[in-house]
Amino acid sequence: MIDYSVLNEYEISDIAENLAIEGTENSLFSLSEIMDSVLQNKLNISQDLKDKIISNIKSILSKNEKGNIGLAQINPIAGDIEYNAKKVIKYIKYAQSLNLDMIVFPELILMGYPIEDTIDRHPIIVEENIKWLKEIAHITGSTAALVGFIEPRKYNLNTGKNYYNSIAILQNGEIKGIVRKSLLPTYSEFNDYRYIEPSPVVGVQPDSTLCLLDEDSVVDCDKTITINNVKYGISICEDCWNNKDFFDRTLYSKDPIEELAQEKPDVFVNCSASPSRAKKEQLKHNMLSFTANSYKIPMVYVNQVGAIDNSSFEGSSRAFSPDGALIARAKSFEEQFLIVNPLKKIGKIYPLTKGLEKTLTEQKVFTLEYENDLERTYRTITQGIKDYFNKTGFERAVLGLSGGLDSTVCAVLLADALGKENVFGISMPSKITSNESRSDAEILARNLGINFAEVPIKDMVDTTNKMFVTLFNEVESKWDCRYKQSFTQDNIQARSRAMYLWGISNEFAKCLPIATSDKSELYMGYATINGDMSGGFAPIADVPKTKLFAFARWLNKNRKEKNAIPEAIILKKPGAELAIDPKTGKPLIAEDALMPYEFLDEIIWRVENKHEHYWDLMNTTFQYEKKNFVSKEQKTEWLDKFYRRMSTALYKWSILPPSVIVESRSINKYDYKQPITSSRINYKGLSRDEIRGILNETV
Amino acid sequence: MIDYSVLNEYEISDIAENLAIEGTENSLFSLSEIMDSVLQNKLNISQDLKDKIISNIKSILSKNEKGNIGLAQINPIAGDIEYNAKKVIKYIKYAQSLNLDMIVFPELILMGYPIEDTIDRHPIIVEENIKWLKEIAHITGSTAALVGFIEPRKYNLNTGKNYYNSIAILQNGEIKGIVRKSLLPTYSEFNDYRYIEPSPVVGVQPDSTLCLLDEDSVVDCDKTITINNVKYGISICEDCWNNKDFFDRTLYSKDPIEELAQEKPDVFVNCSASPSRAKKEQLKHNMLSFTANSYKIPMVYVNQVGAIDNSSFEGSSRAFSPDGALIARAKSFEEQFLIVNPLKKIGKIYPLTKGLEKTLTEQKVFTLEYENDLERTYRTITQGIKDYFNKTGFERAVLGLSGGLDSTVCAVLLADALGKENVFGISMPSKITSNESRSDAEILARNLGINFAEVPIKDMVDTTNKMFVTLFNEVESKWDCRYKQSFTQDNIQARSRAMYLWGISNEFAKCLPIATSDKSELYMGYATINGDMSGGFAPIADVPKTKLFAFARWLNKNRKEKNAIPEAIILKKPGAELAIDPKTGKPLIAEDALMPYEFLDEIIWRVENKHEHYWDLMNTTFQYEKKNFVSKEQKTEWLDKFYRRMSTALYKWSILPPSVIVESRSINKYDYKQPITSSRINYKGLSRDEIRGILNETV
Repeated sequence: MIDYSVLNEYEISDIAENLAIEGTENSLFSLSEIMDSVLQNKLNISQDLKDKIISNIKSILSKNEKGNIGLAQINPIAGDIEYNAKKVIKYIKYAQSLNLDMIVFPELILMGYPIEDTIDRHPIIVEENIKWLKEIAHITGSTAALVGFIEPRKYNLNTGKNYYNSIAILQNGEIKGIVRKSLLPTYSEFNDYRYIEPSPVVGVQPDSTLCLLDEDSVVDCDKTITINNVKYGISICEDCWNNKDFFDRTLYSKDPIEELAQEKPDVFVNCSASPSRAKKEQLKHNMLSFTANSYKIPMVYVNQVGAIDNSSFEGSSRAFSPDGALIARAKSFEEQFLIVNPLKKIGKIYPLTKGLEKTLTEQKVFTLEYENDLERTYRTITQGIKDYFNKTGFERAVLGLSGGLDSTVCAVLLADALGKENVFGISMPSKITSNESRSDAEILARNLGINFAEVPIKDMVDTTNKMFVTLFNEVESKWDCRYKQSFTQDNIQARSRAMYLWGISNEFAKCLPIATSDKSELYMGYATINGDMSGGFAPIADVPKTKLFAFARWLNKNRKEKNAIPEAIILKKPGAELAIDPKTGKPLIAEDALMPYEFLDEIIWRVENKHEHYWDLMNTTFQYEKKNFVSKEQKTEWLDKFYRRMSTALYKWSILPPSVIVESRSINKYDYKQPITSSRINYKGLSRDEIRGILNETV
Repeated sequence: MIDYSVLNEYEISDIAENLAIEGTENSLFSLSEIMDSVLQNKLNISQDLKDKIISNIKSILSKNEKGNIGLAQINPIAGDIEYNAKKVIKYIKYAQSLNLDMIVFPELILMGYPIEDTIDRHPIIVEENIKWLKEIAHITGSTAALVGFIEPRKYNLNTGKNYYNSIAILQNGEIKGIVRKSLLPTYSEFNDYRYIEPSPVVGVQPDSTLCLLDEDSVVDCDKTITINNVKYGISICEDCWNNKDFFDRTLYSKDPIEELAQEKPDVFVNCSASPSRAKKEQLKHNMLSFTANSYKIPMVYVNQVGAIDNSSFEGSSRAFSPDGALIARAKSFEEQFLIVNPLKKIGKIYPLTKGLEKTLTEQKVFTLEYENDLERTYRTITQGIKDYFNKTGFERAVLGLSGGLDSTVCAVLLADALGKENVFGISMPSKITSNESRSDAEILARNLGINFAEVPIKDMVDTTNKMFVTLFNEVESKWDCRYKQSFTQDNIQARSRAMYLWGISNEFAKCLPIATSDKSELYMGYATINGDMSGGFAPIADVPKTKLFAFARWLNKNRKEKNAIPEAIILKKPGAELAIDPKTGKPLIAEDALMPYEFLDEIIWRVENKHEHYWDLMNTTFQYEKKNFVSKEQKTEWLDKFYRRMSTALYKWSILPPSVIVESRSINKYDYKQPITSSRINYKGLSRDEIRGILNETV
């Protein structure tokens, strides 16, 4: 793909002219790419040239009498209606200039998805999005625009939640009709049902129902809308995820797409905000393709891009032909305006994030072959970092570089997301830190080109220890139960380091410290509160350790600057370098304190994805066991340790900084909720006889 | 009320004998109170005496032919099924020994409410609760028991969520029938709809439907169940919160109580788990009374007691006569087994938490008169602390005592919740700390009888500063935008203190450090990350500052040891004592950095409870303004500051430790969700003309 943003006016002009002469479908998409660069303010060209390009695109498109649609895959900011509306209007004007039939935005585009409880506490933002919607309508011409917004329900209604999640169809200065979401995802990261009422009706209702619809006022009208002689059946996100033939089990009894299909639309359109997660791409692709094919109706799907807090949306908007064949797919993790004509099967299939194509058949079992998911992981996280910083107004990150895998991978991701000049790596050696770790950290920083400083923590640790002697003696004079062996020393080191990082964040503008904990260690509570697990953002909190190893190798191979990560970092056994192993006299290895990461990560994967329990795990062979002998005692010890440590890690999960959800299941608190006080769950269960015995003994 | 737990066998025997001779209703309740002490293991008496008391209660009750019901208001542990089941069976056996018709437990008692997503990730606990339920059924006799549990839906179902929130009616060794929850609260702290399917039918279904019910298999049978010639209409919590005559607006279209009423039951029974929140008591009382009265059917309501994480349940189970009059109410915030007979209007009304009676007419406006809510606040929080520690296995708390209001109130609450010997207050003065603050802290500790130590932070601050000079210079050599004035110095102090507290927690068993931030300051982000806002628990995170002042006075007046809080602490203007005000040369006062607390707390109250926006606030007079002149410029400055600071405090809310929800609305992340990246919301909104202008300018 050509990067048009590096070219100048003359070069662009030349290219555009040649493309116009060609006048093919390919030219159409190349010209569109130039305009994308312009619309995203990456390329600055004269108004004349812009007009010329637009007129050329228009001319190619004019061959199709009808069905030209623009997929506006854009990145909103939650609640910043002005920002979102300005973007929307820019694209509407562009679509109009191309004389498209329709421009489609992602779900809830005026508000950004998710907006969560904000609409309940601050209803003014809902009033505002209605005001903006009406004004946007005034500006529309013949090109219809599908614009998502939060719709307050009738003010004098006496039943149900206060809002609908809606889409307005704007055209010729007016609101032509409104579609409301029927199925409300309320699981994992989705909380639609908290403040949204399910629509009592599928498909389009007249504009007269704006802010006035209830069950009784549903108008008996055509559920589709016809724009330039094409009938569209419009739905919102989850509405198309309930196909009873595709899914073994569906969440809702109603299938809005089935209802829409009865009206025989020429094209299905679905406005979505669907975050990137492992395994989701294949599901989405197959589901959309299946739906198009089973009704023999083309499907146009527009997805949000960008990240909102913990959710990173991948875009990859697309269109399928009536036989379920993919005819267009927008880029992943980038804003794009993609033109399609589902009737003429015109569209361009941009490459899917590398590796994902290969996963279109589901991986049913845990494997350490992460290859297929690494570019998606990379783009999900870097987008997550970038947007979290951008949208909260931060620009720079500071992190501790230990020479270990976690901080290393974080540093690479941060450099790529924020720019290397915006990242500061601080090596903060203690007396336990090996010379290798120190120099690995420095080499890494040099390779990445990020800023680097080394500051020892010895004085901090010494002073803290000196103070602790008096303090602990005073406490001990009143309290028993002082530990013979405690984690105090380990934690002093981690907390001293966090003190430095937060200090820099306090002293320098727009700078956030980074929490470097990974998923495997968070599961085990192997992270220090106010230490390595504290920060403004936690980039790899949903990436298990074994994947991080594969990821590091992938980064070395696939980034522009090859091999930025010193091989020594990847080869070294992970360890926090916070304590010395009395057995070896060397820094304690994490796997000795926990268990082999390969084994641990398989437990996590099975518990999260297959909901297996203790005995399932005990009675089946792990990958690790195929290569290594594990005695029953050893396996019991590891499994017991897993459940014990996980139970007491729940508190740490609850105070974990914002982090990108990456895997199909996570411990992110906005994705998975478990009471902290449920730490006494017996994950092994009891037999019927044991239960009987206990009950009989109870007086 | 007599504290039977301090009496010996002979004294109890004497009292019991006299009560038996009296044989009145009052004797019934006094005898029950003795048995409560026994059942709660607070009183140890011989089996003979127990048998005698039980036989006496039974004899008094035998005058009623039917309708004797036991309300088992107990405190479960989330997910600890064995613990919960043992408690359940103990009370079932007791109820059977009294020959009661029925014993009623709170909602979901085998699992504890809420159990949240745990049932999805770890389905073994659902299997387990079914096993336990079946075994408990075997032990039941003629006394019917209503036992709440999570019911997996038919394994081969292909639509809907996986579980019901159910109640089994157990009697004579069998499951007699099952009731499932129809209305699923999904707002604030409630997330029922995440993994629970609404019941397709109201009232009782036969036992044959256990784990087998779907919409098609609903049995057309009587929705009530008859036990000893009394017809009961049973519902679960939210099911009775949808009365369309009582509420101006209801959340659901279906009203299960109305459906049940059509079957003309003799008694309504509702099993609940309803947490304590400001203003909720009057709503609950009036709603239940209204419902009983409008159907002319008595209502028996059993509520959970104890705290699960952030939710503190107040118990106060009760019964209403057919005319809506209160005939019984259990104690608040204590386990109790209360016997009622709604047909004979027999029951005892235990006093409501002090002050709440007075609030039975709604306070519609913000007021600084917190008096009516202070005992409830006290009991909600102390129960919250106690159960969080108990249920996670912690016993001791350590906190910094600054001599300020926040840490003072926390210390009192901790001493009362955990026992003074289990609390360690550490005074950690800096050079800014006044001598008054130091001595106030010490006097407070002495008055409370908690452990106390003083450790200066000077060395920590000095060492940190020494290290920071080098570190910041190194960073400055690469990065611009070093603040001229930063909070670095303030935060070093707060973080050094947290370092001490976490150190103690690491070094001594079962000890948690406490986060002392209050609600007003958390709204303003006026709290230090890894400093005063870090801890294992945050007792007063949902109490605004003005309420804390009233609370401190209330504590001085109402605790057994009067005036534990030195008057100076209450009189002093709050300030973090982290920085010197250059204007005065004295420690900076919080109200100067923020705004008057009275003004701030009214904004918070109005935004949370009345959903007011910027202009509502601007255009109406605050209480504070009635007493103090506030210029328009000043008010603008304060309101702007409020929204600006709140927008950037969202991140801090997300990493706040577990805390008790106290007020009717909160910022607790399990109660209120707003994307952190929504910090650019324009809370003022724009006029139509401004919007038009912006849209026209957008190219």
